[in-house]
Order: sequence, then structure tokens, then C-alpha cells
Amino acid sequence: MLELYHAGLTACSKKVRLCLREKGLDYVSHYVELGKFDQHDPDYLKLNPNGLVPTLVHDDVAIIESTVINEYLDDVFPNVPLRPADPVERARARLWGKLADESLGPNMVVAFSGPSNIGMAARGLAAGDIDGVLDRIPLIERRNVIAKISRGGGFTDDDFAAAREKAGFIVRRAEQALEAGPYLAGSTYSLADINMIPFMDRYRERVVPDLFTVSQHPRLCDWCDRILARPAAIATWAESEETRAPAA
Amino acid sequence: MLELYHAGLTACSKKVRLCLREKGLDYVSHYVELGKFDQHDPDYLKLNPNGLVPTLVHDDVAIIESTVINEYLDDVFPNVPLRPADPVERARARLWGKLADESLGPNMVVAFSGPSNIGMAARGLAAGDIDGVLDRIPLIERRNVIAKISRGGGFTDDDFAAAREKAGFIVRRAEQALEAGPYLAGSTYSLADINMIPFMDRYRERVVPDLFTVSQHPRLCDWCDRILARPAAIATWAESEETRAPAA
Repeated sequence: MLELYHAGLTACSKKVRLCLREKGLDYVSHYVELGKFDQHDPDYLKLNPNGLVPTLVHDDVAIIESTVINEYLDDVFPNVPLRPADPVERARARLWGKLADESLGPNMVVAFSGPSNIGMAARGLAAGDIDGVLDRIPLIERRNVIAKISRGGGFTDDDFAAAREKAGFIVRRAEQALEAGPYLAGSTYSLADINMIPFMDRYRERVVPDLFTVSQHPRLCDWCDRILARPAAIATWAESEETRAPAA
Repeated sequence: MLELYHAGLTACSKKVRLCLREKGLDYVSHYVELGKFDQHDPDYLKLNPNGLVPTLVHDDVAIIESTVINEYLDDVFPNVPLRPADPVERARARLWGKLADESLGPNMVVAFSGPSNIGMAARGLAAGDIDGVLDRIPLIERRNVIAKISRGGGFTDDDFAAAREKAGFIVRRAEQALEAGPYLAGSTYSLADINMIPFMDRYRERVVPDLFTVSQHPRLCDWCDRILARPAAIATWAESEETRAPAA
């Protein structure tokens, strides 16, 4: 049996929800309310000591980190393979997963922190409550970010400028990669596309829409449209019971 | 034919050199002089657009990023497998690879920046030369770090304190993981150990030796000793023709 603890339409949760749908795997959905910091609940930390979503539980064993979860799913359920058979394309697919984890995700937190749910939730708390929230965050990188958003006055203009520059660099790289084939790893739809699309979609819609135009980056815009038109992506992106907190 | 562009005894180069030796694979060694910024040379950037070492060239195709290179080697040369057969242990192995890439490496740059080769080389340059060096660095994260070391007065006390705290967190995690088995992924020696040992060894020897004692972390210290005693590790760590620039 598969269970997924996730936060619906957030980027890393979409990565795994899309992978599960592409593979046609059923799972029990558990919505984790980030606005209430349920991801730092002691019971949840037993599953995911990093205090992050998503977490996959497969036959009572917890697997964490969305990129690792997706490779695990492809190892255990090899039907509908989502890694290229060619080892060079497979290495390329892993590079995109790394880029999403190391650059796109952290960069989005900066470029996008103002209107983010975490920022809003943290700002809605009294100062004493914020201390309590911060104390329960296991990863120091994450704790520092939340502290900066909730009390430090947020990020500086330099931070935003660097985040924009980085976004532009990644967008150009992706455009360039798509000269070699219809998908990020080359000829095959793969975890590269699945791990990148939730971030790229958000960069296009809300983070850096001006850097993400058809005239500047035609292949990348076309790639976004093609990936988002897949039935599994349409189902993953749709609002549903699964993408919101259950009524109390 | 396998060729490796690397910087000898630096951490990410040791990761791949150790993996190649564990697998018994011969390769042509190309030493890249970081002190001369050869990694930003236009010809090298054709192989590795990120301007980092190492780069593996296999039958004229370049594979970059040490963690991705090691998975590629295990895909293409499955003799002496270095990923656990059990998918849960395999996922755990990948988590350690991610931790090394995302936390241990960048953290070491901060905690260790004073005496690093890059810092020394950058400080030995005139201001005009530093601009030239910075302009040629493709990755903005890396460019910002070198700028900070070479002109910004380096990292602050807060940066060092955060780096120490993070190092302590990772060291405790590793100690805890080794309660479950002799290796980081569990029962099997794997890429988890190979990707972590160059960093852990340096943390113990030079970065945070006071956090890395036998009385505090007996399992981790024993693990370091066991991994470093393997013939492949002894050969990888030894100074040799391969680990220094050829005489001009």
C-alpha cells in the first residue's frame, strides 16, 4: 500500500503526485497543512525528520525528499519507466533533478517569499508563537529562511536581484537543452520533466513572467504547454478534495 | 575509453576517483589546476558548462557533477555494484548523496573558506584580475562565494556559527544512521559512503574536529576509519602523479 503525505498544489508535492499519476499508481492521500505548520508535528517528524513535504509511505516504510521518492517509485514499479533507457540521457535527467532541488526550489523561496503561504502564516503569528515555530524546524537552512521572512524584514533588494539573475540563467539553460530534443533529457519524457515542470510553471506564471516569453524562449514555452497538457498533469494541477485541507 | 578531469585531492574529485577504483576501472587522468582557474577555461567549459570539477568523458560524451557521474558509472559498469539492491536502502543512499551535495559541500566552503585554495588564489590576484576571474564563473552561487572571499572580507561570524551548527547536525545524523547498520545506507557499502567520506574525513580532520570525537560519535569515527582503510580509498587519498599539476 502507498500513502502520500503532501501539500496539494505546492511544487514538491506536485512532483510526486504527477509521478504517481503517470505510473497509474493508486495511493491514500494525506493533506499536510503547511499554514498550520503540521509538517513540524512530532508524529509527522517520526516519518520525515526533516519536517518537509512530501513523504511517501510504502508498506509502512517512509521515503522522503521528492526527487528520491520519484526514483524510488521508478525502481519499485518499473512499469511505465520514467527514466531514459540510455545512460547518458539518464544522467542528464538526474542533472535536471539536481538543478530543481539545489537552485530552482531555494531560489523560488527568495524570489517568491513575499506572497508565499509560509510567509503569510508566519506573519500572522505573534512574536512568541514565531519562536515556537522556529524551534520546531529541524533543518537550519529552512529555519533561517523562515526567521528572515517572519522577523528579519524579509529578503533584500540584492537577494531579489540575485534570485532573478539565477532564474534567467536556468531558463536560458532549459531553452538550450530543448534544442537537442523535445524533452529535457533528450528524446524521452522522464523524471527530468516531472521534477522541473512544477517549478517552471510557477516561474512562468508568477516568479519571472517577463523572462519567460514565447519570443525569448519558444522551445521552453512550448515544452511547458506540452507537459501541462498531459492527462496526468491536468489531474495533478486540478483543485480537488486532495488539494485542500479536509473540513474540520 | 574513460577520461577524468579532476583536481586530485579535493572532495568532489575524490568521490569519483574512489568510485572508479572501487569498480576497478582504468581511466586517463587530466589534472585541472583550480589555483590557476583552469576550470573556467573556454575549452573546459565546452565539456563542463558549470565550470566545476570533476568531469567524466566516456567515449567522447561528457558527464558532469560528481554524484551524477557516480550513478552513471554504476549504470554503465554494473560489475561491482555500488547501489544497494534493496530499493529502500537505495533511496537512503541517494539521500546521503543529496546531503553531501546540498549541505556538506556548500557548508564546507563557508566553514573552511579561509585556508581554501580558491581563497588563497583569489587573494593573490590584483583587483582587476579578480574581476576577470569572476566574469568567467558560470554559476552565480559560485561567483557570489568567490566574490565574498576575495573582496567582501570573507564570511561573517554569523556565517561561521551557522556553518558549525549545520556541521554538528549532519554529524549527529550520520552517527544515528550508523546505529542501523555498518554503512550509511544500511547493510551494504555503497555510493552513500563513497559520496560522504571525502567530506566527513575533512570535517573530522580540519573543519570541526572538536565535534567529531570518538566519545561523542563512536560509530561515525569507526565508519571513517573503516572506509579510509579500504585499498581503493588508500590509493585515492595517496599523493601521486595524478594528484598534482604536471611539471611545466
